[in-house]
Amino acid sequence: MNGADLLCDTLLANGVDVCFANPGTSEMHFVAALDRKPQMRCVLGLFEGVVTGSADGYARMTGQPAATLLHTGPGLANGLANLHNARRARTPMVNVVGDHASWHLVNDAPLTSDIEGLARPMSHFVRRIEGPGDVRRATEEAWAASLGLPGIATLILPADAAWGAVEPETPAALARPRLPVPAGEAVEEAARAIREARAAGRKVTLLVAGQGLRARPLAVAGRIAARHGVRLLSPMSNPRIERGAGRLALPKVPYPVDVSLPMLADIDLLVLAGAPVPVAFFGYPGKPGRLIRDDCRVVTLATACDDVQAAIDSLADALGVSGAGEGLAPAAAARPPRPTGTLTPETAAQAVAALLPENAIICDESITASGHVFAHTAGCPPHDYLQITGGAIGIGIPMAAGAAVACPDRKVVATQADGSAMYTIQGLWTQARENLDVVTVVFSNRTYAILNGEMRGVGVNEVGLNARRMLNLDDPALDFVSIARGMGVEAARATTADELVTLLEGAMGRRGPFLIEAVL
Amino acid sequence: MNGADLLCDTLLANGVDVCFANPGTSEMHFVAALDRKPQMRCVLGLFEGVVTGSADGYARMTGQPAATLLHTGPGLANGLANLHNARRARTPMVNVVGDHASWHLVNDAPLTSDIEGLARPMSHFVRRIEGPGDVRRATEEAWAASLGLPGIATLILPADAAWGAVEPETPAALARPRLPVPAGEAVEEAARAIREARAAGRKVTLLVAGQGLRARPLAVAGRIAARHGVRLLSPMSNPRIERGAGRLALPKVPYPVDVSLPMLADIDLLVLAGAPVPVAFFGYPGKPGRLIRDDCRVVTLATACDDVQAAIDSLADALGVSGAGEGLAPAAAARPPRPTGTLTPETAAQAVAALLPENAIICDESITASGHVFAHTAGCPPHDYLQITGGAIGIGIPMAAGAAVACPDRKVVATQADGSAMYTIQGLWTQARENLDVVTVVFSNRTYAILNGEMRGVGVNEVGLNARRMLNLDDPALDFVSIARGMGVEAARATTADELVTLLEGAMGRRGPFLIEAVL
Repeated sequence: MNGADLLCDTLLANGVDVCFANPGTSEMHFVAALDRKPQMRCVLGLFEGVVTGSADGYARMTGQPAATLLHTGPGLANGLANLHNARRARTPMVNVVGDHASWHLVNDAPLTSDIEGLARPMSHFVRRIEGPGDVRRATEEAWAASLGLPGIATLILPADAAWGAVEPETPAALARPRLPVPAGEAVEEAARAIREARAAGRKVTLLVAGQGLRARPLAVAGRIAARHGVRLLSPMSNPRIERGAGRLALPKVPYPVDVSLPMLADIDLLVLAGAPVPVAFFGYPGKPGRLIRDDCRVVTLATACDDVQAAIDSLADALGVSGAGEGLAPAAAARPPRPTGTLTPETAAQAVAALLPENAIICDESITASGHVFAHTAGCPPHDYLQITGGAIGIGIPMAAGAAVACPDRKVVATQADGSAMYTIQGLWTQARENLDVVTVVFSNRTYAILNGEMRGVGVNEVGLNARRMLNLDDPALDFVSIARGMGVEAARATTADELVTLLEGAMGRRGPFLIEAVL
Repeated sequence: MNGADLLCDTLLANGVDVCFANPGTSEMHFVAALDRKPQMRCVLGLFEGVVTGSADGYARMTGQPAATLLHTGPGLANGLANLHNARRARTPMVNVVGDHASWHLVNDAPLTSDIEGLARPMSHFVRRIEGPGDVRRATEEAWAASLGLPGIATLILPADAAWGAVEPETPAALARPRLPVPAGEAVEEAARAIREARAAGRKVTLLVAGQGLRARPLAVAGRIAARHGVRLLSPMSNPRIERGAGRLALPKVPYPVDVSLPMLADIDLLVLAGAPVPVAFFGYPGKPGRLIRDDCRVVTLATACDDVQAAIDSLADALGVSGAGEGLAPAAAARPPRPTGTLTPETAAQAVAALLPENAIICDESITASGHVFAHTAGCPPHDYLQITGGAIGIGIPMAAGAAVACPDRKVVATQADGSAMYTIQGLWTQARENLDVVTVVFSNRTYAILNGEMRGVGVNEVGLNARRMLNLDDPALDFVSIARGMGVEAARATTADELVTLLEGAMGRRGPFLIEAVL
């Protein structure tokens, strides 16, 4: 038995039985160990951004960390952008980054780099395994950190720690870490602040995030809102929302500062349930960074590291609304009609909403179209809604793959911007390899549309050659049908809303990956 | 005039007139400034690994740094793996990484990350611009560092430094930094060591790297070798070699430890001209990390940061061989015949060598096939040979794009492994967008062949399901013809050597990007 075997066994003992991987030479003993553990499902990504993005999607749907297998510093580096998104989502994940044998580091071989330095900005926990005898403890710590902090735990596995012999042992399952339940004082303070503010006629908003956006805590929050005149709101970007007909729908803080500022301007008391204070996605000249008034009172009921669901329950208790009394009305069942005619971001979103199956998982990275997707799916049958959380584009295709690995019985529908799709387009191959049940709709507008808008925002209305060539994807136009087929994914193109509806009908009625390029 | 204008003007004044870019919102003022400078050629990459890899290829061929434009920490992160290769190649490069407005950092908006922390492991110089008034000095320092250290200079440009007003000024060109010429003592010591060792009948090797691998210094080294019985050798991986018929060909340190160790075992004195001591690419159980004997004497004539060409000239002077006297024989003009029959790594390499045009640039990332490519092209017409230098796969397609931007009148021939191609496959679109004269031959063996070899190296001869699924790319097979066409690059497939020859004949006779999938 070697260190690599013990690492696998420790992961498996604690329920980590999916490993998204892109291995290299320094991980060959780990690959050999994985090969001896058929209980571990190994999913290959042809690029590490696919690996980490898939692990994020998987954990958002299961609540369990996946392992990732990454090859030295550059392999980790390729996965960092999607680790950034996962870090912002507070997704549990255990990265195993292979490194040179410890005694070889001094030789500064070509692939040597500062792995700790690369890992720290995008990890909540970083730990180098000190040798074969340290494997079990280090792995247990990383697993516990991923669930307890919660977040990104990065383990660095030197090749000699992987190949070194260890005493045979069978790791036992550890107790699963629990997130802290906010103290009674925090709950009492929030309840008191709400009562006092409402008694004084002031406006109160409860900002609900993270695990608070599941159906049950949303219903509880809806009772608080209905009985105490509190407005509910969710952040701009959320890891996972349980929504659709029969569930309480919260508005999100809008992306454009000029829209969000007036929307939040009347808040006198802001109670945070798992969210930070809302801030502008970017800073702009002469505009504020925080989106609430300077004199708005802020009370933290729970942070992103707390048990947000327990916090909302406790707040309901403290406010006397814990029973099954009247809450806000949930979303009514409603779908847009099947659109016809011109394909636009809006009609494309309507088509998705018109045909979304029961119990689907939407993975949305449609960027400038996401407002339409979010709005039109509000009354669809109950579904989960996963978003890009850190602004690092290129999460959509991998996240959909990970969600499909997590939930093989549910349809995953990926609404995907074209520019962002190209960042991790290799993820389509993983969808084909694993025969994942993902329908991807590429919103193909052949531009970085958000940037054209931002150019206008900085006062540039007439763009010249250089700007046009940096903001547009139209010369040559990407042919996503051809690209997808090249990676083994069946695909077709829609140029009208009617064609998109027809293609979606077909795609929803079959299993396995399918891509539709919706040319806008 | 704002800081972004001044940054552009400072780059342009110092000869930096190509910017490989993937911008985001925080760089909109920089994009607007670039738009006002038609002298700057802006080349869009659809993923940042394309951006940094292209900048590497460009600088290897021009000796001039390109600028890159990257969007905040995640954008930089996506470019880090190819920065790792460029760092190992000591390529001059000026990265401009946009960040939030300085006053917005405290708000920890979703895209906020530790950019300095991400940049340092893969940069030789990192500097945050402190405000509009600091733009010119910071940019000049970064430019000077890229050429003087030489290497990767990363500038962090806060949005408010870009949009802030500056006094109008016209930056002047600075004196180009020169690399240090090794001191007379270092040269004398190397010359004395060589004379003494040879007089005592000991074996001497001169390891030539970096700028020493251009045709002229190679010829000088050839005279040293011929007149003093010194063996010449080059490192395993080199940024650029001028080679082909009429030029001195050096053997490279082989990748497999079991081949390189005996090859270097007889060296009594190793003189380093721009190279570190040869080490194993990876450490293996029971095998050494350094590839020379422990009692081998090592003398450093020049490091990678010195003027290696001047050092070789000085050594020739000190050894009395500076004239035009007899040197080692250069490579004879010789090409393999056009291969027929089965397509193998060897026949594919023979086909490339049989048809390589005059004055071509080979960008080689064929990994397990690279030995064949290197061997069979040795007697081709004079050409440049660019390799992956840091082991971070995914440099080939971008490097070819950058070399083609640098040398529009030369044919670029990219010999490309399939697994590595998928890392930065988006670079094909840039080749199409810019109509770059690149012929890519994908060596499509549908496996990470090197890893299958390494698995055998760790004693695993029978691989199971998990290992097979992590090492092979065959289910489904990638269709590179379809992928390339989807990105606007014409493409065709060869399944025999004859077909490859026919396709190469056609591709070499036309201009513009073309991809051939050589199915092995």
